[in-house]
This record gives sequence, C-alpha cells and structure tokens, in this order.
Amino acid sequence: MAMKMIGVIGAGSCNNETYELARKVGVGIAKMGATLVCGGLGGVMEGACRGAHEAGGQTVGILPGPDRADANPYVTIPIVTDLGHARNVLVVRSSDLLVAISGGYGTLSEISIALKLGKPVIGLGTLPNMEGVQYVTTPEEAIDAIYNTSAVPLA
Amino acid sequence: MAMKMIGVIGAGSCNNETYELARKVGVGIAKMGATLVCGGLGGVMEGACRGAHEAGGQTVGILPGPDRADANPYVTIPIVTDLGHARNVLVVRSSDLLVAISGGYGTLSEISIALKLGKPVIGLGTLPNMEGVQYVTTPEEAIDAIYNTSAVPLA
Amino acid sequence: MAMKMIGVIGAGSCNNETYELARKVGVGIAKMGATLVCGGLGGVMEGACRGAHEAGGQTVGILPGPDRADANPYVTIPIVTDLGHARNVLVVRSSDLLVAISGGYGTLSEISIALKLGKPVIGLGTLPNMEGVQYVTTPEEAIDAIYNTSAVPLA
Amino acid sequence: MAMKMIGVIGAGSCNNETYELARKVGVGIAKMGATLVCGGLGGVMEGACRGAHEAGGQTVGILPGPDRADANPYVTIPIVTDLGHARNVLVVRSSDLLVAISGGYGTLSEISIALKLGKPVIGLGTLPNMEGVQYVTTPEEAIDAIYNTSAVPLA
Repeated sequence: MAMKMIGVIGAGSCNNETYELARKVGVGIAKMGATLVCGGLGGVMEGACRGAHEAGGQTVGILPGPDRADANPYVTIPIVTDLGHARNVLVVRSSDLLVAISGGYGTLSEISIALKLGKPVIGLGTLPNMEGVQYVTTPEEAIDAIYNTSAVPLA
Repeated sequence: MAMKMIGVIGAGSCNNETYELARKVGVGIAKMGATLVCGGLGGVMEGACRGAHEAGGQTVGILPGPDRADANPYVTIPIVTDLGHARNVLVVRSSDLLVAISGGYGTLSEISIALKLGKPVIGLGTLPNMEGVQYVTTPEEAIDAIYNTSAVPLA
Repeated sequence: MAMKMIGVIGAGSCNNETYELARKVGVGIAKMGATLVCGGLGGVMEGACRGAHEAGGQTVGILPGPDRADANPYVTIPIVTDLGHARNVLVVRSSDLLVAISGGYGTLSEISIALKLGKPVIGLGTLPNMEGVQYVTTPEEAIDAIYNTSAVPLA
Repeated sequence: MAMKMIGVIGAGSCNNETYELARKVGVGIAKMGATLVCGGLGGVMEGACRGAHEAGGQTVGILPGPDRADANPYVTIPIVTDLGHARNVLVVRSSDLLVAISGGYGTLSEISIALKLGKPVIGLGTLPNMEGVQYVTTPEEAIDAIYNTSAVPLA
C-alpha cells in the first residue's frame, strides 16, 4: 500500500527564515508518516527535505535536470526527469496535497496546476490572494491544515 | 529561417464574445506573417486558430492527448504530445511572446512559466493584476503590443 | 484540415552519403505535399529538412533542448520542448508514418515507440532485422513505400 | 545520501514463469539494499515490485497515466506522470543500472535509451542479440551481474 504523499513547493533559493519554515513543515510531514514530494533542489525544497529526513521520513525529489547530483543532500528517492519545468506537473500529480512556501513564478505554475486538478493547496508566506489556496501563517498551522484537509486517512 | 512564433493561450471553452476576441487576435497574428502557436483545442485556442487560418496563416496546435483528432479544425500543424498539462510548457517555450485571453488555472500556469522564462505576456481580458503582464483591452491593442514588444523583427 | 505528417528519424551526425539519402527523402516528402516532422537537429534530420525545404515543403523540428537556436537552418516550424530524449515520443506521435535512415540507439528508441503505437516504419540503411520495419534500399523506394503504406490519402 | 536505484523493465503482462523470474530479481535487489525503480504497472513490473516489497525493500513506480490507482499493489513510492510512453525515459534516467526481463517494443525503447545514456543493461529472457546488453539466464546470474557491473558501491 502506497504511503500518503505530501508535496512541498517553493523557491529554489531562500533566506534562513523561510528555510526554517520549510524545515518545520518537513518535520511535521515525516511525523505524520507521509512521504514528502518536492522538486529536489535547494531553498524551500532542501529545507523541507532536511526536516523530513532528520525526522526519519522519506523524501522524493523530482529533478528537472539530467543529473542526480543536482538533488539536495536530504533527498532519499531522487527521480531524474530531464524535463525542465515540465517536471513541475509531476510534483503536483504525485502529491495528494501541496504546501506552498514562499516562491515565485515556478511555484505559481505548480499552484495553478494543483488547483486545476482539484488538489488542496496550503499557502504559507506564498503568493497572496489566490482563490482556492488555504492560507496559514505558521508551520504548525500548515501541519494542522494537512490533517484537516486530508481526504485520505493518514497511516 | 524559422518564422516568428506567437502563442495564444486561454480557456478550452468560452463564450462567443471571447471567441471573437481570440479570432481577431488570430487574424492579426497571421497578417503580421507570424505563426500562431497554441494548445490546439477549443475555445480561445480555436478562435485564434480560426482567425489565423482564415487570414492565410499557419497554426501550430500542441495537443495534450494522444490523438490528433482532438485538434480544432483550424490547426494546420498538429503536434501530438500525450503529455497532459506538461504540454503547456511546450506552448510557452515554442513561442516568442504570448497573448493570454480569458482563461483559468491552466492559462495561469502558462503565464507563470512564460514570466519565469522572461517571455513577454500580453493580457486581454485575462487574470488580472499579474506583475509582468502587459494588459490591453482590445484585440487591436494586443496586436499593437505584439509589434511594440517584439525583440525580433517580424518578416 | 491538417496536412499529412511524415517523420524522418536518424542520427544527429552522419556522413555525406547518408545526408544525401536523407535529403532525397525530404525532397520526396515535400513533393507529395506532406509536412516533414523530425527532431530538428543535424545529420539525417538536417539532410531531410534541407531537401524538403528546398523543394518548397514545410519542416517541423521537435527540439530536445531549451533553445530554438539548436534547430538546423531548414526547420520552418521549430517546437521547443526542453524534454531531452522524451521528445522522441513526440516525433513519433506527431507522425503518420516514419522513415528511419541510418541511426543508433536514439533512432532505435523511436522505431520501438512507433512499432508499439502501430505506426508504419520504413527503414533505409537503418538498424537491420527488426520485425515490423519495411526495409528499402533507395530514397526512391522509400518514397514509393510511403505512398503504398499510407492509410490516409495524401492531399 | 540517496540509495542505489536499480531499474527493472519488461512487459506489462506476462506468464507465471516470467513473473517468478521478475519476483526473484526483485528479492535480490531488495536484499542488496537498493531501491527498485520500474514503470509501476503489472506483469514484470509487478513481479519485481512484489519480490522487492516482500523482502522489505522500497519500490518506485513511475506511472504513465494520470492516476495513482494504476500502480500495482507492491509499489511503495508511486510517481504519477501522465506522460504516456515518455515516462520510459524517466525510468531509465532514474536508474543506475537496468535489468530487462522479457518485454516487447516498450522495453526495447527503454533499453535503447539506457544504452544511449551509457547505463549498464542486464538482459534476462529479453530481446536477443543487442550489442551492449549483458545477457544472463537466471535471476541469480542477474543479481550477480548487478553486483559486478555496479560502478557505485552498494550500501
């Protein structure tokens, strides 16, 4: 039986404060027994993977380039696509629910696809005022929102 | 020498008024000697292809499904991808500049990728208040904006 | 109404003799009023595009990288995918029939997908002994084979 | 640190004998502490996942369709691509080495891409006479070959 998959999306580089937010979200995802899915690179993706990995969880990194070496050091399952930005769609499709943390146009493209596919999106310090995004202000609220929004019961 | 490629993005179904906007934009694109690029389906995509085709232009439809028969009847160059929403990235990458007409989350994902890649985006009755989008209010203004934004001289 | 699309697949670099074979096949495809589809790069792809373009035909190049500048100079409709080898599937799917000229493992992957999808494959100096490939020995025979295999009548 | 990834490729439906071959290979992959990568569907893919899963290993299924429910019941990490046959390239790119078991044209496309990318391919009852494939005749030999071919030391 496949585990629950929670996506974390956000910028590939970020300040320490945002990195810590992502890390706390990653910890929470691991503690609920879910697998973290992300784009596998740095910034928010690394922070989230680090938190999940350090809490004993699994981390899937769906990489845009042709080389596994691009994965951040906390990715345990690297998926090498060489699809460029088209891999964003795979991050969304492989996730039951997404948490958007900070982010720019790449993150916006992922939020858009998620909403188009009817997947829940939780926003933490991300692009504002998007209809369909459930905004929260702390990592703890993000984790609570994952529990509350989940259609599928967690293990 | 490859021709200039102008993308038109927007919803796969739309009302008559929006269809006519798209059609007029398509006519203008064909008249400037450019090739129209789109997702190949109905609604705004069909309106734009129809306008371009009836004005003697070429129309590329980058289709999401496995079947060429999904193309609207005004697509002259159907590209069959079977990539689902990931084909949105190809529409953007294959275009020098994009015109967004109306549209929802799918269009938003395309605008996001275009802005991430630094491509000009002209918005006509599309999602409001996006930084980086050049908003216009008529098809004529859209065509003027294409002429004015183009880095590469048109044939 | 979309035109008939004929794919030409083969190595990205080749000797003059193979280039001339590809060029003659390209001429024949243009003369039958079909659109040539290929991977857009050099070698066999360039030879075929050159022949088709010089004979007044259209040439679609479905490029693997992120940059239109990679297209050979005889591509009239460049499709920019940034999908790497995954773009091979799009070359096959967008073609009604494929002609394989010379080629290595990349070409073999395209022949495999074509046969899996039930598309006719004509082989000219390509990988030998593949069940399902119709082998010919001259460009003229390749063009005859296109006429004879086509399920869809040409314009 | 990411674990070693071993791909298993082969037909989506197969007889019991082939299923058992795949299962034994899956057991061996799990026992060496590697993660199994495959296309996530039935037949050889299911046999291999089942063996690996029952031996306590991890199994990544890179699915061609839009729905996680297509995964066989032994996939622990489902990756949902909706890319159709283009997902074959991701199976290859995500693997350090591939074992081909039985299989038809889809498998041939994967072997071709693997050889193009310079990845080792071990063949067990698969398409014959391919230069570059290391042929073996039993699951035990396949596992030995993985140990012997691996450039990267296993955990």
